[in-house]
Amino acid sequence: MKTVRGFASATVGNVACGFDVLGFAITEPGDEVILTLHEERKSECPVSITAISGDGGALPLDPKKNTSSFVVLKFLEYIRTSKGIDFKGHIDLELKKNLPLSSGMGSSAASAAAALAAANELLGQPCSKMELVHFAVEGERVACGSAHADNAAPAILGNFVLIRSYAPLDLITIPSPEHLFCTLVHPHTELKTSFARSVLPRSIPLKTATQQWGNVGALIAGLLKSDYDLIGRALVDVVAEPKRAPLIPGFLDVKHAAIDCGALGCSIAGSGPSVFAFSSSKETAERVGQAMREAFLLPETNLKSDMWVSPICKEGAKVL
Amino acid sequence: MKTVRGFASATVGNVACGFDVLGFAITEPGDEVILTLHEERKSECPVSITAISGDGGALPLDPKKNTSSFVVLKFLEYIRTSKGIDFKGHIDLELKKNLPLSSGMGSSAASAAAALAAANELLGQPCSKMELVHFAVEGERVACGSAHADNAAPAILGNFVLIRSYAPLDLITIPSPEHLFCTLVHPHTELKTSFARSVLPRSIPLKTATQQWGNVGALIAGLLKSDYDLIGRALVDVVAEPKRAPLIPGFLDVKHAAIDCGALGCSIAGSGPSVFAFSSSKETAERVGQAMREAFLLPETNLKSDMWVSPICKEGAKVL
Repeated sequence: MKTVRGFASATVGNVACGFDVLGFAITEPGDEVILTLHEERKSECPVSITAISGDGGALPLDPKKNTSSFVVLKFLEYIRTSKGIDFKGHIDLELKKNLPLSSGMGSSAASAAAALAAANELLGQPCSKMELVHFAVEGERVACGSAHADNAAPAILGNFVLIRSYAPLDLITIPSPEHLFCTLVHPHTELKTSFARSVLPRSIPLKTATQQWGNVGALIAGLLKSDYDLIGRALVDVVAEPKRAPLIPGFLDVKHAAIDCGALGCSIAGSGPSVFAFSSSKETAERVGQAMREAFLLPETNLKSDMWVSPICKEGAKVL
Repeated sequence: MKTVRGFASATVGNVACGFDVLGFAITEPGDEVILTLHEERKSECPVSITAISGDGGALPLDPKKNTSSFVVLKFLEYIRTSKGIDFKGHIDLELKKNLPLSSGMGSSAASAAAALAAANELLGQPCSKMELVHFAVEGERVACGSAHADNAAPAILGNFVLIRSYAPLDLITIPSPEHLFCTLVHPHTELKTSFARSVLPRSIPLKTATQQWGNVGALIAGLLKSDYDLIGRALVDVVAEPKRAPLIPGFLDVKHAAIDCGALGCSIAGSGPSVFAFSSSKETAERVGQAMREAFLLPETNLKSDMWVSPICKEGAKVL
């Protein structure tokens, strides 16, 4: 019997202009997955979920439907067919969810990434991190119906990850400037990814698209040049944010509060309802977070919220 | 009487995925503008065009309609109102066009940039290069009806220039990897920018736009990381190239010839008909150019062409 604890942190997808192509990982909070290997135990399905905590009973216990176990099954299938490792034992999986569901904080990706980090360690690291990303992306399809990579990839790889292409999956890791801090504020309300996706137009004006890709290029340049001012100027989303902002009570107040308080920029985390801001120091990021929480508490919105301040995570999913 | 010779080289706008937001300058060929200052001569219009060569008589001699003189007039107006420099003399302008018109090689931008570099020198350098870009962009409006900056900005500044935003104009200079070489092939046919623009859709699917900005981000990352392979993978245009390729006889043959010959990538220069390719050595770039010229000569196309191989220009418009 061998036990491994995997951990993967929250991630922010989209990142303003980087809709569907950019995400980054922060260092906390994160989900934990504990895998216990029983070499001699046989069963029809090689993975069982023994416990889930922190989800309020919302997540499925069926190993083929829960993201964290689903990706382990995919991993086992892959190492059998591609690496010749025919796993015959059984894995018990315990999931400790610390990330709120449907929060825009990459909750499903964190569970998948933590499970994959643990499974890879448990079986002697047969896969590279880049291989693990593929299973984590498949997990997103189970969790929310679309195999997007902008949470799954940074949850595994850390840093900023740019998705150049989905077919084939072509990921570019962009290291973070040293003094870039993320403030992540999660208001106590849910917003389903599928609903947030349904409000987006199927087509956009070419002129709008051009603006967006000018900002994407500038954001990547700002990150690689450690040009904080440029990062702020480029943190503009003319495509998704205008459509999704109305789905998040108080969003514009919160955004204005963050900018007024010195944030470089502020936008919706993933598809919301969480909101993130970037700052060029930890002190500013803390102050920005307080201002954002207060804005969510304004009478017309009156939402309590949680807040985290974190640098960008450099290492990605890991074994504790 | 004082004479200054300005020079600015060809530029490539759009750069595959970077439609309307990215351009770069090569070192040759370029246009030359010779300005001669007559301090004592008075006239209603402070600039006259004395000669234009290399244009086959196509360009207007009216100083308000010719791009090179128009931008000098704008420059004089600006230094009077913003810098308090009230120029009272007269400037004779001679334009030596070495760039073919309507070629996709930034011909009008080169004339404007050369004229501005000379005018700025002639009057004691009152303006920064960034200020000059504004007049060069205005020149594009006179030349082709749209004030795009993806030729004008690199013609003045050199390097790759990313246009994050047009209002306000926010330009980011991206230095080139050391071993990046451009092959530029100009087939002997004309394609008006306004016509090439008219074939573009007004709206594009969100999914297509997302692909494009993934590539824009990746191209900027490739340039800043000197990752030649990534530059090649990112040199994909799913928006303009599919619509414009049919306007350039033999384009697909030429592109395939370039790639088969070892180019990192190949696409339309500006709005065409010139075609550019990137390579990671001068030798490959030369070989790629020969292959591209031969492809233009295939029986079904049978177009003669000119070819230039050049590194990316680091300095931009200059005084000779």
